[in-house]
Amino acid sequence: MTPHALGIHRSLDPPGVLPQTARRLDATPRALENEIAVDVRALNVDSASFHQLLDTERATGETVSRQILRIVAERGKMQNPVTGSGGIFLGDVREIGPRHPDARTLRAGDRIASLVSLTLTPLAIDRIRGVLASSDRVELDGMAILFERTLWARMPEDLPEEVALAAFDVAGAPASVLRRAQPGQTLVMIGTGKAGLLCLAAAREAVGPSGRIVAIDPSEAASGRARGLGYADEVLSLDARDPVAVQSAVRDATKGTMADLVVNAVNAPGTETASVLAAKDEGTVLLFGMATSFSAAALGAEGAAHPATLLIGNGYVPGHAETALGLLRRHPRLAAVFAGLSGAGGP
Amino acid sequence: MTPHALGIHRSLDPPGVLPQTARRLDATPRALENEIAVDVRALNVDSASFHQLLDTERATGETVSRQILRIVAERGKMQNPVTGSGGIFLGDVREIGPRHPDARTLRAGDRIASLVSLTLTPLAIDRIRGVLASSDRVELDGMAILFERTLWARMPEDLPEEVALAAFDVAGAPASVLRRAQPGQTLVMIGTGKAGLLCLAAAREAVGPSGRIVAIDPSEAASGRARGLGYADEVLSLDARDPVAVQSAVRDATKGTMADLVVNAVNAPGTETASVLAAKDEGTVLLFGMATSFSAAALGAEGAAHPATLLIGNGYVPGHAETALGLLRRHPRLAAVFAGLSGAGGP
Repeated sequence: MTPHALGIHRSLDPPGVLPQTARRLDATPRALENEIAVDVRALNVDSASFHQLLDTERATGETVSRQILRIVAERGKMQNPVTGSGGIFLGDVREIGPRHPDARTLRAGDRIASLVSLTLTPLAIDRIRGVLASSDRVELDGMAILFERTLWARMPEDLPEEVALAAFDVAGAPASVLRRAQPGQTLVMIGTGKAGLLCLAAAREAVGPSGRIVAIDPSEAASGRARGLGYADEVLSLDARDPVAVQSAVRDATKGTMADLVVNAVNAPGTETASVLAAKDEGTVLLFGMATSFSAAALGAEGAAHPATLLIGNGYVPGHAETALGLLRRHPRLAAVFAGLSGAGGP
Repeated sequence: MTPHALGIHRSLDPPGVLPQTARRLDATPRALENEIAVDVRALNVDSASFHQLLDTERATGETVSRQILRIVAERGKMQNPVTGSGGIFLGDVREIGPRHPDARTLRAGDRIASLVSLTLTPLAIDRIRGVLASSDRVELDGMAILFERTLWARMPEDLPEEVALAAFDVAGAPASVLRRAQPGQTLVMIGTGKAGLLCLAAAREAVGPSGRIVAIDPSEAASGRARGLGYADEVLSLDARDPVAVQSAVRDATKGTMADLVVNAVNAPGTETASVLAAKDEGTVLLFGMATSFSAAALGAEGAAHPATLLIGNGYVPGHAETALGLLRRHPRLAAVFAGLSGAGGP
């Protein structure tokens, strides 16, 4: 029997479930007939997860490196047990099973990135070479497995590796913004980290010159970067954990109309209600921050009698990886900022 | 200055936050200009909270009555400090502020229920008249405050009180189904408890005779009830924590087309991926179960490379309480099943 296209055959505990649900995966580093085995060079850890690992390091003294080694040894995958989130990897194809759909186009040695979460990716680590806290990046030697339906992308030759990887990691968000935002609309972007900046570029393309964009971030550095790029009409240095302050500031910034589309790409908890209150009654809230609480969003809307449409950002939008690279190519100043944030060529 | 529409002016500790977030509210029992004061007759305590109070009574001897009096005296609201949850209340309007939007339609003496959680509702208790453990209900004399934007509903005269309260509790779900489902569509309903049954009636009205409805519930009793009501073309006794089994069963039941709309109203965790895999690529998944995990839904879709639209069910849809009562009136057999499930008129 052919191994399952979604990798169920690799789930050890419990068996028979999808690998994402499993507590532990079989990370045996050899490709079955419809799998790809990859020599992993680096992980881009999900931002919410990386921050939690840093918090734990500060609280307990267990370094981020040791935590990652422990988690991957226990689980056969890099799924943060607190945040539940993962990240993506970069590596070189080692071996491709003869029945994998890409068996004819992909070759050993090709450099690729995974486009699905590490939470479902069998992973074994030989050694960690370095942790780059500034870019949520972990350099290591290891081996990962891609299943028949696991998404991956070939690394582009015209963009620095770190830039492409960082863009792939958040590619679902700007692709969703391009699909949903309409010319002339008012959009509020909460969080102007890497995902937020890509979303802002996508938002300006989608709403056009007649649209209005307001960006919010508590960090002076992050809001300064967003201001410098010029996609937003207004950038507010505000903490989105304060729904009252956000609602009032967005009311002022939109002359009372509030937002057609609110996009949340914050990696800290507690920003759900502010996101809801920034939207028009008939507006849409698109939640991409992996620290989002389902019940906080649902009850926040109900408690405020706010009928906004609440969307869980889907990390997969067809063509999202190429869409994100296309944004960086069309916006060289954004690509330069991205390079700085991702540590590419920087100090 | 007009008191805040969401009640921030009643938050004492800390001041300036939304009342749901506050540890203590000002429960002064008089309506400000945009508030309603209600003579409370009964609380329907959230089931998780009520069970915790019973556990404490067994452990410490402090009765449920005394615990409720203590909590409400300390906090100015009935928010269980252990579970964090509340419930809803039933009462008679005492006083309505002249600037409240319902000042012209609501009168002193009208019997109403709150449609938002007790966790954000200022409450003062004079005395507790009785505790009905079988229905998580506390009969009492007290006073509650509704803010300008707090949702409430008039109690109907033609339906038993318990039936109306149970319908109000889940009213957002069927109202959302009526808004989203289109004639001729294929709909999969996961979970056939009270919310699920109301959604099934709404779904049949919305998709019409040419639509196709498949319902899924692991409980033989619950799926038997759904089968007996006849809204679904097929009712499958399946556990939605098994996404592989659900995907395969829905594929068979829909002749391979999968669902335009999947509605999840399950109160257990782990059913997100099954919900995603039951949908068409261009389908929508509407999640109403409060045990839903945001990251499990987002990553489940990404992991399977499934581009479905993922919606957090908003507990508030304009007119949702009347919509739910209307469904019960148009479907008397459903109302009878609801009465049985809610203990109305029973022994």
